Amino acid sequence: MAAAAVASSNGGAATANAPTPGRLTSVYSEVQTSRIAHALPLPSILRSHFTLADGPASTATGNPEEIAKLFPNLYGQPSAAVVPSAQPVATKPLKIGVVLSGGQAPGGHNVICGIFDYLQERAKGSTMYGFKGGPAGVMKGKYVELNADFVYPYRNQGGFDMICSGRDKIETPEQFKQAEDTVTKLDLDGLVVIGGDDSNTNACLLGEYFRGRKLKTRVIGCPKTIDGDLKCKEVPTSFGFDTACKIYSEMIGNVMTDARSTGKYYHFVRLMGRAASHITLECALQTHPNVSLIGEEVAEKKETLKKVTDYITDVICKRAELGYNYGVILIPEGLIDFIPEVQKLIAELNEILAHDVVDEAGAWKSRLQPESRQLFDFLPSTIQEQLLLERDPHGNVQVAKIETEKMLIAMVETELEKRRAAGKYSAHFRGQSHFFGYEGRCGLPTNFDSSYCYALGYGAGALLQFGKTGLISSVGNLAAPVEQWTVGGTPLTALMDVERRHGKFKPVIKKAMVELDAAPFKKFASMRDEWALKNRYISPGPIQFSGPGSDASNHTLMLELGVQI
Amino acid sequence: MAAAAVASSNGGAATANAPTPGRLTSVYSEVQTSRIAHALPLPSILRSHFTLADGPASTATGNPEEIAKLFPNLYGQPSAAVVPSAQPVATKPLKIGVVLSGGQAPGGHNVICGIFDYLQERAKGSTMYGFKGGPAGVMKGKYVELNADFVYPYRNQGGFDMICSGRDKIETPEQFKQAEDTVTKLDLDGLVVIGGDDSNTNACLLGEYFRGRKLKTRVIGCPKTIDGDLKCKEVPTSFGFDTACKIYSEMIGNVMTDARSTGKYYHFVRLMGRAASHITLECALQTHPNVSLIGEEVAEKKETLKKVTDYITDVICKRAELGYNYGVILIPEGLIDFIPEVQKLIAELNEILAHDVVDEAGAWKSRLQPESRQLFDFLPSTIQEQLLLERDPHGNVQVAKIETEKMLIAMVETELEKRRAAGKYSAHFRGQSHFFGYEGRCGLPTNFDSSYCYALGYGAGALLQFGKTGLISSVGNLAAPVEQWTVGGTPLTALMDVERRHGKFKPVIKKAMVELDAAPFKKFASMRDEWALKNRYISPGPIQFSGPGSDASNHTLMLELGVQI
Repeated sequence: MAAAAVASSNGGAATANAPTPGRLTSVYSEVQTSRIAHALPLPSILRSHFTLADGPASTATGNPEEIAKLFPNLYGQPSAAVVPSAQPVATKPLKIGVVLSGGQAPGGHNVICGIFDYLQERAKGSTMYGFKGGPAGVMKGKYVELNADFVYPYRNQGGFDMICSGRDKIETPEQFKQAEDTVTKLDLDGLVVIGGDDSNTNACLLGEYFRGRKLKTRVIGCPKTIDGDLKCKEVPTSFGFDTACKIYSEMIGNVMTDARSTGKYYHFVRLMGRAASHITLECALQTHPNVSLIGEEVAEKKETLKKVTDYITDVICKRAELGYNYGVILIPEGLIDFIPEVQKLIAELNEILAHDVVDEAGAWKSRLQPESRQLFDFLPSTIQEQLLLERDPHGNVQVAKIETEKMLIAMVETELEKRRAAGKYSAHFRGQSHFFGYEGRCGLPTNFDSSYCYALGYGAGALLQFGKTGLISSVGNLAAPVEQWTVGGTPLTALMDVERRHGKFKPVIKKAMVELDAAPFKKFASMRDEWALKNRYISPGPIQFSGPGSDASNHTLMLELGVQI
Repeated sequence: MAAAAVASSNGGAATANAPTPGRLTSVYSEVQTSRIAHALPLPSILRSHFTLADGPASTATGNPEEIAKLFPNLYGQPSAAVVPSAQPVATKPLKIGVVLSGGQAPGGHNVICGIFDYLQERAKGSTMYGFKGGPAGVMKGKYVELNADFVYPYRNQGGFDMICSGRDKIETPEQFKQAEDTVTKLDLDGLVVIGGDDSNTNACLLGEYFRGRKLKTRVIGCPKTIDGDLKCKEVPTSFGFDTACKIYSEMIGNVMTDARSTGKYYHFVRLMGRAASHITLECALQTHPNVSLIGEEVAEKKETLKKVTDYITDVICKRAELGYNYGVILIPEGLIDFIPEVQKLIAELNEILAHDVVDEAGAWKSRLQPESRQLFDFLPSTIQEQLLLERDPHGNVQVAKIETEKMLIAMVETELEKRRAAGKYSAHFRGQSHFFGYEGRCGLPTNFDSSYCYALGYGAGALLQFGKTGLISSVGNLAAPVEQWTVGGTPLTALMDVERRHGKFKPVIKKAMVELDAAPFKKFASMRDEWALKNRYISPGPIQFSGPGSDASNHTLMLELGVQI
């Protein structure tokens, strides 16, 4: 019951040369302490002698000729697979840096532990540095040397606080030069960039730059984002998605049980995921809510806010006829970004607000296009006010600040009142709003994320040892037990396409959106009508680290891998 | 991984005579399924032959002579203790009804399972009824017969949906008569009322009424509320508090790790608990936040909103000097109810709004007392608007609708800007608001709540078997392992005092508030200065049902029982 101070791996206290104390002075809960001690399984391929085998030459996801021009030194590289070796393979000590980039995702510490353990076990005499505060740490040369005592308390722990993260980008020629100075000064053999689509694109540009400058420093990426939108065939999932979705699903399941017990509330739950709706889809598959809005489908069907409102209201009215005046509705954070008419309204508002006075009488509204005018009038007054009043320093409307769940509650209320007046609805509607966000980014990683991240990190170490650069660490065969997972690297250029920005081609790793013809969405679509009217709620309960439920991975991944669940 | 349909205890499907399907058609998660199968430990006293021993006669918490007048048939009853018996004690089949009253709390289903199993094991041939939708079910005679198939899927499950709950009260002579009709029609030997302080007072009034009418129906109460404010020496805790606090603490711990990783947000977390601040205190003890506001202390020290704001702002400024521009702040839902000046302002506003026009120019404000005027001007404009615009159907200001966490963020922002202007603060403040409420009321109960509730229910069955009425089921010695727990009943009249309402004495069980001189608050008070400036965050992690951390109960209970933690 009592929280225990963290003991270091060798039983000692912080070593004198540990530059910052990190978590060595932290007090841990019993569960945290037990997680530190949790032994991480490795794929069997990483447990005995192994070497690297190259695959065929690669191309790009789109516009290969432009990608080839942008990455003259890296384009076309083969993928790499860790394969068994009859003999021990000679290795040498390495100097490796690691950097966390962008938002938190459970498991990041285990990627670092994986690299660290690779170096300890396979490349004795190596040195590892953690760049502090994200890419800015690389540019400014701010780092901490990672030793066993420093790393130990972070094993299987949530958060990114071992070295923290940041959202800076290495973009300008000066910034690339700063990064070069840092890696040269530290004599780095390799840099591991743990991040999302943007950060991995950046990692590849850095790898290209280093190679072009004939530096020895190589760059390997790792797929991180709770949003689940960095994935492809070779990289089946990004880490953190599993844990975050399970934390949100625990809360959703609890709220569902509350809704069913109380019998009088509709809970509107907004979930993280601005660009893609994977989190909402996964939570829907785990919990079976009455309504789940998937942004990609809303965009595909070119739905209006009115149509979305009508859909929710229809479900509420049908449920009222069945005697159910409660329910749970999931909404992706980025919903309104998927609705074209809203984007149009926002653009017009920004234009008008920049040049005109918003008069009380509302004459300014005449400057809106008829369609936008209609949409504006359809919005609840609180949202109208928010759009007009709360603007960013550039005077622009702040879409991100709109609490979509509260907006939908207000719009549904209005629509229900109309139906009540028309004699089509006679029940009582009470909406409760929720936003599940920060709670999910730094939880203790699930067994799946813990093992997946450890293998990603261990594999990244191996890729660097074998001289690879511009690859993203790739762990596959994830439907099988950990022992059977495959390990290797995929050329980052193979994941890329170009976008035209300011008259120039920019390389991008396209975000993986929810595919309406892929298994997870199809499963959801085949069941949602039943979920809407019947109460098929599932309560996944809290994440378990041992016993029943502790080793299951998420539905999205399993369905994408063809597993029937 | 796949969710499993619930199998009934005897392997069959719903029996034909099950009046409503309940959860028999539910699909369960792996964790839910494993919880159904979880064998519930019983105190050893309940595992072999036992009988009941009476203690000394009881009195009341206050005004015993008035309580004696209000409860002529029940006042002065002895408490009862389950004690070993050398021989089997003769029992007879019973007809028992059970009702859930008030808000959800994890473990309610297990109280019902405890009663049910008592009847199955110790009073064969008994019948059990669940009244549907709370006390209204008793008055209207709406019930379901509880059989093994019906009850089974709810074992160790969260929520109150087996029979649902309600907030109606049995108050008027007509309503007492309706209750009498129902229990007479069903020929009930006993009624178990599972509820909070109000519901248990009501249970006692009902027991008194039944006894006065010479009915055979006896009434036993059970202590339920996540707020933790129904407790006394004999009833050391109310069920649900343990689970709810652990769910909130999981989320708080995650948010703390996020705060430390991101380094740029102050998270203001509002927690349930309108009348008492036990939840906030317990979560503080579990997680070590930088600031925790305890309503009882704010009231005791007669603090103003300005003073509370200054306290938070001081911590933020001191942390900024140490380089920490992030933190976590816990706020009890009922905070502003504890601030006398706010109550005064609300009263004046209600008066003014009822009689005057609120003019744009603000001339109406001159009708506020100077102190209230000052406070009103101190409030953020969004809160001012909310107070003036969003009123209830009676035209009254809706204090409950104020999002205290957002109000405090706005007030702290304003204060920080003043200090910035005075050169006393130069950092950047970003507040993030959270409300953790509904997520905690219906989670899967912890091992502690599961066992505690089961013993409460089993004990309630025994109390009814031995002819007791007007007692609250009392399980004690909770710092020891379950086997050593004590079981018995405490006279509800012994927990009572009177309040004068509308010229009459009304019996009440006084809510147990956070005591500033008791161990939990003292421990918090002794550590909060350290927590404020140093980052002593603890992440309790998700509730575990097996393995490390699964059997710990909460800090408040242990400290109150004198255990050093």
